[in-house]
Amino acid sequence: MNFRMIGRIISYILIVEAVFMLPGMLLCAIGGQSGSAYAFLITIGIILTAACMLWLLSRKAPKGFYSRDGLICVGFSWLIMSLFGALPFTISGEIPNYIDSVFEIASGFSTTGASILNDVEALSKGMLLWRSTSHWLGGMGVLVFLLALVPISGRNDGFTMHLLRAESPGPDVGKLVPRMKQTATILYGLYILLTVLDFIFLVIGKMPVFDAVCIAIGTAGTGGFGVLNSSIGGYSPYIQVVCTVFMFLFGVNFSCYYLLFRGKIKNVLKDEELRWYLSIAFFSIAAITVNLLLVDFYPTFGETLRHSAFQVGSLLSSTGFSTTDFDLWPAFSKALLFSLMFIGASAGSTGGGFKVGRTLLILKILRRNVRQVLYPNKVQAIRMNGTVVDETVLRNTNAYLCAYVMILLISFLMISVDGFSTTTNITAVVSCFNNMGPGLEGIGPTLNYSGYSAFSKIVLIFDMLAGRLEIFPILVLFSRSAWKRR
Amino acid sequence: MNFRMIGRIISYILIVEAVFMLPGMLLCAIGGQSGSAYAFLITIGIILTAACMLWLLSRKAPKGFYSRDGLICVGFSWLIMSLFGALPFTISGEIPNYIDSVFEIASGFSTTGASILNDVEALSKGMLLWRSTSHWLGGMGVLVFLLALVPISGRNDGFTMHLLRAESPGPDVGKLVPRMKQTATILYGLYILLTVLDFIFLVIGKMPVFDAVCIAIGTAGTGGFGVLNSSIGGYSPYIQVVCTVFMFLFGVNFSCYYLLFRGKIKNVLKDEELRWYLSIAFFSIAAITVNLLLVDFYPTFGETLRHSAFQVGSLLSSTGFSTTDFDLWPAFSKALLFSLMFIGASAGSTGGGFKVGRTLLILKILRRNVRQVLYPNKVQAIRMNGTVVDETVLRNTNAYLCAYVMILLISFLMISVDGFSTTTNITAVVSCFNNMGPGLEGIGPTLNYSGYSAFSKIVLIFDMLAGRLEIFPILVLFSRSAWKRR
Repeated sequence: MNFRMIGRIISYILIVEAVFMLPGMLLCAIGGQSGSAYAFLITIGIILTAACMLWLLSRKAPKGFYSRDGLICVGFSWLIMSLFGALPFTISGEIPNYIDSVFEIASGFSTTGASILNDVEALSKGMLLWRSTSHWLGGMGVLVFLLALVPISGRNDGFTMHLLRAESPGPDVGKLVPRMKQTATILYGLYILLTVLDFIFLVIGKMPVFDAVCIAIGTAGTGGFGVLNSSIGGYSPYIQVVCTVFMFLFGVNFSCYYLLFRGKIKNVLKDEELRWYLSIAFFSIAAITVNLLLVDFYPTFGETLRHSAFQVGSLLSSTGFSTTDFDLWPAFSKALLFSLMFIGASAGSTGGGFKVGRTLLILKILRRNVRQVLYPNKVQAIRMNGTVVDETVLRNTNAYLCAYVMILLISFLMISVDGFSTTTNITAVVSCFNNMGPGLEGIGPTLNYSGYSAFSKIVLIFDMLAGRLEIFPILVLFSRSAWKRR
Repeated sequence: MNFRMIGRIISYILIVEAVFMLPGMLLCAIGGQSGSAYAFLITIGIILTAACMLWLLSRKAPKGFYSRDGLICVGFSWLIMSLFGALPFTISGEIPNYIDSVFEIASGFSTTGASILNDVEALSKGMLLWRSTSHWLGGMGVLVFLLALVPISGRNDGFTMHLLRAESPGPDVGKLVPRMKQTATILYGLYILLTVLDFIFLVIGKMPVFDAVCIAIGTAGTGGFGVLNSSIGGYSPYIQVVCTVFMFLFGVNFSCYYLLFRGKIKNVLKDEELRWYLSIAFFSIAAITVNLLLVDFYPTFGETLRHSAFQVGSLLSSTGFSTTDFDLWPAFSKALLFSLMFIGASAGSTGGGFKVGRTLLILKILRRNVRQVLYPNKVQAIRMNGTVVDETVLRNTNAYLCAYVMILLISFLMISVDGFSTTTNITAVVSCFNNMGPGLEGIGPTLNYSGYSAFSKIVLIFDMLAGRLEIFPILVLFSRSAWKRR
């Protein structure tokens, strides 16, 4: 294990975190909330001190950096980021309980958007901005950010690859260009571009600039923290439509955008995951619209379609915004939304969940297995976008499903000690683990996670981080063999 | 595809089914319910006619009989058995709706025990016996019965193997003795012995003989159909304890009993699946007892322990009897029972569920994957009871999990159109697919499935049969490549 190198990287990450706290601090200072501004300042001081100490301790790091180092580095840095990121809330007293603060910021970094706040609007603007900033940073990944923008000299491509692979979502990380560092830069370029576009469209709709910044970066990271208690429900239909469109856009694999930029439209249109993503979205919107129309839930067809498209976009992309209390919808619509929570967005997007691409692979594995049971002697390869998928990727996808199911079951069992209803507990775990935000019943879109005990909150914090990092970077921290020196 | 041979086997199975209807018919005739007796008689007539026709059509069957033939044969025969087995209920008018009757008997054969009857006690004794008989026949498998007792001459061991493998539960079918036919005979011998023992213990507790027969064969098949509306709750504590013990016993891999008989106690004690099965049972009983004692649910410790052991035994072995309305238990106990529904009994037992052995394999696959992520170049084998598990078995286990999750999600989505609560729908699907019986909320232990629409019932019938036959024999019926002539 290359502990020194891991320490060095974490020290850089802490500096990035401190820098991203500055806007929140400034906003508090301008707004006259000096207490909150000082809370940021103190936190930044603590973070920089910790970063310096780590940096000093980790000089002369050896060169070797392996896949396991990448995993452990990513797992650790997200944990530490959450522990430090929670400090402004607690120090300022805006969220007095530290566990609650960690829950809130882990929910931010993991782009879950699950909150323990009963009254979001009571928070100072600086804190609201910091909450939403954590979505943006967590969406594309803080290590990807580091690799894209900060020149860590003298490192080879394998080093970058291991870190990027450990932090990026999806069954397989595709290189957009031969060099990983460049790939990271392109990804962040596209990310910033789309975020700015979203912001412009929101401002055109006369959304206040502060709200537009928070909603744009919250949408970009497919997070879900809003600035109003009514989430997006209080804004105009135009804004709701803009949010719907951008939620869907941020759930698409970013390599599709890169291909579009390079004019390879045919390749994009042929992308199997994109086709499935759009088909699932289309089918779900249609089914829910019909279901809602049958029970006359909303007065007009337009309103029905708007709410149904918004909620499908929100849960398929794992954002978690809401415009309506879908916990009141008929059972079939709720069941469909619940199923979408599992599937989630595309691989290589900022969204969470099991991922459309992985679901597709599971279906293909299943089809192959049925055929193999029928014709045991026939060797069959699985193809995706025309090319054969490596058996290692298939094995990892299977293992991912195993881990996914186990973690869901165990977490569900653990949080059920708090005595909430079965549906509340199931959807809480599914929602946190898939980085959605809202669930059903006790944690429906108009409610929050404040009722859970500290123990359950810690379980859910684990789920949120494990979900965002796709399990293994967090799971290896618990593995004995990760800590053995070989 | 060897259609003729499949037809031949199904004709034999139909004869077995007709024979097993005789006791029910006799009971109706003796009890003076001539209508119901005639219903049996007519059904037996129809079945024998169908069997004769099939037999005549399937003369001169070719020799070749492959794995796919075994699967399709098993899938078809269970479907046909259910369609014919439902006839006595409908013809006699005791369950007027044919879909309801098929649901009831498919629930019987698949050893689920889910019922659509509001008043079980209104059924005639003959019908009650037939319901419970279906559990007994379905528990160990009708094809295993055929292979054990009926001399199908001139068939090789591969033929028997394919059929046995397709019908028996568990990730891998172990041969107890070199010849498969003998294995089947030993299994049925043990099965009959344990059933008789159960019956004797029940009669000692002064249970009426008719009840004792039904409960003994219902427990043996880990079914769950009772003869009273209160399931086992109306009987004495002694009888409840006897049922608890035998439910646990029928959830054990039968090869353990065979080893015990041959004096190989050491091998039995070292069996990993058995150890886990017992550990899960012990831990669950302890946890639920503590949980119930904390809220003072029952007046005494003894009563608490009895109910908790009974319910754990009932759901872990996938039987589905109940002595109390556990839907009223605190959330943690309910969550634990819900989790047990997934795990289910041991491979090679008469119980359903995902199976303890398979869960163990999934955990081992997961551990190996974590290690492989950490040390990509190390080759690691997975061992079970000291021997290396074949990679094909691991691949099949993974595929099984894929199919399992997919079927659960899709079924849940389909039955949610009926508008029941989320928990009701989730537990209905989980309960039927894992061959339990009761669920929570709308299908809790004191309620039943009568509220679901015909469409949902058909979905649940599919789930019950797919669950009992471990998915693939039913899934291949829907696969295009199964029907291709090659």
